Amino acid sequence: MIDQVLQLLHERRFAEIKKAALDMHYADIAEVFEQLQDDRESALLFFRLLPKETAAETFAYMEPDVQEFVIGFITDRELRFILDDMYLDDYVDLIEEMPANVVKRVLQNSSGENRQLINQYLQYPEDSAGSLMTNEYIYLKQTLTVQQALDMIRKIGIDKETINTCYLIDAQHRLDGVVGLRDLILAQPGALVADIMNPNVISVNTHEDQEEVAQMFSKYDMLAMPVVDNENRLVGIITIDDVIDVLQGAATEDMEKMAAITPSDKPYLKTSVWEMWKSRTPWLLLLMVSATFTGTIITHFESALTRAALVACIPMLMDTGGNAGSQSSVMVIRGLSLGDIEFRDIFRVLWKEIRVALMCGVALAVCNVAKLVLFDRFDLPTALVVCTTLMCTVFFAKVTGGALPMLAKRLGFDPAVMASPILTTIVDAASLLMYFEIATSVLKL
Amino acid sequence: MIDQVLQLLHERRFAEIKKAALDMHYADIAEVFEQLQDDRESALLFFRLLPKETAAETFAYMEPDVQEFVIGFITDRELRFILDDMYLDDYVDLIEEMPANVVKRVLQNSSGENRQLINQYLQYPEDSAGSLMTNEYIYLKQTLTVQQALDMIRKIGIDKETINTCYLIDAQHRLDGVVGLRDLILAQPGALVADIMNPNVISVNTHEDQEEVAQMFSKYDMLAMPVVDNENRLVGIITIDDVIDVLQGAATEDMEKMAAITPSDKPYLKTSVWEMWKSRTPWLLLLMVSATFTGTIITHFESALTRAALVACIPMLMDTGGNAGSQSSVMVIRGLSLGDIEFRDIFRVLWKEIRVALMCGVALAVCNVAKLVLFDRFDLPTALVVCTTLMCTVFFAKVTGGALPMLAKRLGFDPAVMASPILTTIVDAASLLMYFEIATSVLKL
Repeated sequence: MIDQVLQLLHERRFAEIKKAALDMHYADIAEVFEQLQDDRESALLFFRLLPKETAAETFAYMEPDVQEFVIGFITDRELRFILDDMYLDDYVDLIEEMPANVVKRVLQNSSGENRQLINQYLQYPEDSAGSLMTNEYIYLKQTLTVQQALDMIRKIGIDKETINTCYLIDAQHRLDGVVGLRDLILAQPGALVADIMNPNVISVNTHEDQEEVAQMFSKYDMLAMPVVDNENRLVGIITIDDVIDVLQGAATEDMEKMAAITPSDKPYLKTSVWEMWKSRTPWLLLLMVSATFTGTIITHFESALTRAALVACIPMLMDTGGNAGSQSSVMVIRGLSLGDIEFRDIFRVLWKEIRVALMCGVALAVCNVAKLVLFDRFDLPTALVVCTTLMCTVFFAKVTGGALPMLAKRLGFDPAVMASPILTTIVDAASLLMYFEIATSVLKL
Repeated sequence: MIDQVLQLLHERRFAEIKKAALDMHYADIAEVFEQLQDDRESALLFFRLLPKETAAETFAYMEPDVQEFVIGFITDRELRFILDDMYLDDYVDLIEEMPANVVKRVLQNSSGENRQLINQYLQYPEDSAGSLMTNEYIYLKQTLTVQQALDMIRKIGIDKETINTCYLIDAQHRLDGVVGLRDLILAQPGALVADIMNPNVISVNTHEDQEEVAQMFSKYDMLAMPVVDNENRLVGIITIDDVIDVLQGAATEDMEKMAAITPSDKPYLKTSVWEMWKSRTPWLLLLMVSATFTGTIITHFESALTRAALVACIPMLMDTGGNAGSQSSVMVIRGLSLGDIEFRDIFRVLWKEIRVALMCGVALAVCNVAKLVLFDRFDLPTALVVCTTLMCTVFFAKVTGGALPMLAKRLGFDPAVMASPILTTIVDAASLLMYFEIATSVLKL
């Protein structure tokens, strides 16, 4: 479909483009603009061929770089039309993502009311519920009947981001209850809203962390979450489409941290080489320097190096230790992210890891001793040294891998940075130390 | 709140428990049962104190092990009431999760109609759209007016999982359009549904992969997705609450694969030690055996081992190579999962990784040569050998880390298994080979 429109644009078949656009979802039209980023002229042409409302709706589905591209070629008048049509949460995102000169032009073309609201919304911390919410929700007075409530929704609902859930407030705008459009439709028209509303509203504070909010959506199967200030006054709602982005972003961020990358919310292909370099090199440097300390352990046991067989096992011990540790740490980190594990579970986690570690260690050691003696023709004492170290390494790696993320969480650090790379450095040093200690004492080197 | 109820149960203060339960969300009541798993008597007591409808609704929010626990102590009559109240998608999940003897009891207490539907739904592959859908949706004929449609929804809506979106079908049950409850409410009562419906319905086939479906929800900001069979007949819908679980599960699965663990959908604390052992040990064994081949490279270059300084740098080279590679592979794997990257982008990805690799490699090498010469008192030739290897390793690691997941995707494997552990093994072998080749030829060992 998208390729087809691009082809039509190329051939300048305007009537057919107009017709095709009518059948397309805004998200797909947004993708056409994405593909046209190298061809400003065609993009402008396509933009002008779209009905004004379609162009405005499409804008909210574009990636920030495409939005910037489009703002670059449209008139102030067209920009004003788009801005008037946007929901406040998308508006705030736009302001946050654009470079200063574009923000200036956007604000110049915003209504006074919107400028004021945006300033207020921009004050919430970046990862807070406040920065995710929108003010386009429906609130009703409890004294209404169902019929009156439905009439009210018909009158004011057109501009609201969702009308599936309506909020009941008192004179001070404090949140008293919630009622679904579904409940209103299914109730008797004469019933009082107060009687069918649910007074046990689940809400979050403006300063609540976004990931916590997302977990609550998932736990309570919600479609929209009311956001209140410190006096329990309703100030906005968060809709589920934004929550999905938060959850996806949080998982990506965890994975990046686990791989020793400074997280970024830009898609891979839109991240410049320079940005990638900045997000990766400091961590590599840090880990490289820590790994050189592991090297000093080796030089301390120079006598052991005379046995090539012992040196040959170093990669295997280091890799296995790193892998065993990252298995544990990744499972614990993900459990912490999903709320399956809390800090108070630390002893249950450790007890589990200890048992798994012992079982894994024994299995690996048995296979290893067999391989070393039968295939590699190691003498038994050397094979036993390697396998004892292997068991100790797996044990140390798994217990450390389980404990570090829990402790990080407790101390207020992000558990995800305690994953593979940092853990590997620690485990490597420990395993080499154990290896050479065991080797020198058993083999009398 | 949950602790409070547990306390009340402990003190057998029944009236207060009843009152507290009225104010609780079903998800929280489900958590009380989770906490009571060691105390069957109190759990039964609590179950009997809940209104029948509350008990039934709560059941759908329980984890499988808690559901099994509850089924274990309730009567057939109570079980039938719960089952009659469940939505079909939850029903199918229950059947899929329970052990055989419980399934038998559930099926014995199911209505004939439900048994038939479940058998049909169980035939869809586990990761398909079909296994995620529910049949409790609203479908309407296009010939209705808005008022007639709303009356219809009032009549049949009570049992439907969502009434926020309604589907328009023709005589063959083929999907013709979609209309939101919102549009019906905001439209004139006399208007025809056919005139306000959206005929460009986004739908998926029953055999579509669940992760693809989840990506579509996110792309098109949908709340429910219609599922059709090969003849475009509407057979069910997928609601967004299930999609969130799919997305979270997919991210967890990717992380587990990246850490060389066979994925499981059980939460950490509910996975037995034996299950953990089974999901971890085979991978550790496989990687351990591959790492021993790296060891054989070392024994081939025995002459180089006489220089302790060279051996001392092995951990640093191996770790840095592994880290550099996993940075690239994790970013590419995540990009592939999120749909940011497709196979056709392979050359853009490689070109990016090549440039980042060169820049990272140079930065690391410069820092390293300075450290080796100034602090560790290496002679310049040895330091240059180490740093040349470092640059080559980083380059090899990043390019391989970028390419492997793309190739895996192309060949139909899961890109996530190409992450850190397997990559590390390859990179380790390559880096040691380069290291000793460069060392022996430059230093004439």
